[in-house]
Amino acid sequence: MKHYRHELWFNVPTRRAFINVTPQIAACLHESTIQEGLALVNAMHITASVFINDDERGLHQDYEDWLEQLAPHEPIHQYHHNRTGEDNADAHMKRQVMGREVVVAVTEGRLDLGPWEQIFYGEFDGRRRKRVLVKIIGE
Amino acid sequence: MKHYRHELWFNVPTRRAFINVTPQIAACLHESTIQEGLALVNAMHITASVFINDDERGLHQDYEDWLEQLAPHEPIHQYHHNRTGEDNADAHMKRQVMGREVVVAVTEGRLDLGPWEQIFYGEFDGRRRKRVLVKIIGE
Amino acid sequence: MKHYRHELWFNVPTRRAFINVTPQIAACLHESTIQEGLALVNAMHITASVFINDDERGLHQDYEDWLEQLAPHEPIHQYHHNRTGEDNADAHMKRQVMGREVVVAVTEGRLDLGPWEQIFYGEFDGRRRKRVLVKIIGE
Repeated sequence: MKHYRHELWFNVPTRRAFINVTPQIAACLHESTIQEGLALVNAMHITASVFINDDERGLHQDYEDWLEQLAPHEPIHQYHHNRTGEDNADAHMKRQVMGREVVVAVTEGRLDLGPWEQIFYGEFDGRRRKRVLVKIIGE
Repeated sequence: MKHYRHELWFNVPTRRAFINVTPQIAACLHESTIQEGLALVNAMHITASVFINDDERGLHQDYEDWLEQLAPHEPIHQYHHNRTGEDNADAHMKRQVMGREVVVAVTEGRLDLGPWEQIFYGEFDGRRRKRVLVKIIGE
Repeated sequence: MKHYRHELWFNVPTRRAFINVTPQIAACLHESTIQEGLALVNAMHITASVFINDDERGLHQDYEDWLEQLAPHEPIHQYHHNRTGEDNADAHMKRQVMGREVVVAVTEGRLDLGPWEQIFYGEFDGRRRKRVLVKIIGE
């Protein structure tokens, strides 16, 4: 069995953003030389997501609006968590809706994705350095 | 290490539906001859889900009602994504709540599921051909 | 390829609770002697979750309040599922928001977690014996 590990680093200048990381994950897979297996891609921080969906700006605006409606950032004092001095409780909720991780099949050395599947880093509390872990196992 | 890949195809006649695919995944596992490992089952489309829950009609009606409340289909023009000519922005949201994929343990050649766990394909924008990927690795 | 399987049992005295299971998963990994691979941790019941987030009491209270707002327990008769004699339809929804499972990378014999990542069992319909499955594959 082969195994591969790599960290992707982000420093998003805004509080929230969606970043297409598919090319970076494909580059990791190429570097791993793994032909058949599973690729795990997960946020290493608990106010960020890795998810798969469409690379369409209007949809990303819809996600932003929808998540803000499900778990509003303000008023900040509505959340117990923010009494610890944080202001990111909403980010911990948004991340649960969008998910922590994706597992992608690796087939014949490629990410085995459907026609419109793209892998995104979802940042909900940016403006600092944060990481995504890529772990691939297989042969 | 052994590996196995199979696609399941669906053409749901309605916009939304939940379909129990557990027997088909069990058949894939049998065909793979893998005894110990992990089975990934994921929607290959971004307006559909694979999830695990109960095979109970009332609950499925509740999911339908609840998801429609969290991310209503109409009015269609409330979503930026639908200005591209689509009418399925809500389906991209419903899918995030229900999830893209499940990873199921394989033990002694069986899907290692709890007593009520059943694997479902969740369609949120049907009436066309769409796929689910089954990838199993192990030995 | 090595493989390891273990069940964790819970009997939560309340309807809902969040329990940090990271030390137990780390003990499983140690017992497995697997150095590189993937660890799947999943609820075997469909009214419970396994998820990764912060071990902070205020945040857990926020999750409790937020999930209750997204999928209220009462009135019980608002859910079709509860006409079967159950009163836990809301638990089936809360579990979908928080997720069934996590997949964690195993690197150099350790759970490859970010600085604040902790693994939780999320109970939404307790007061009875329920299980979590730990399956680790690798070498």
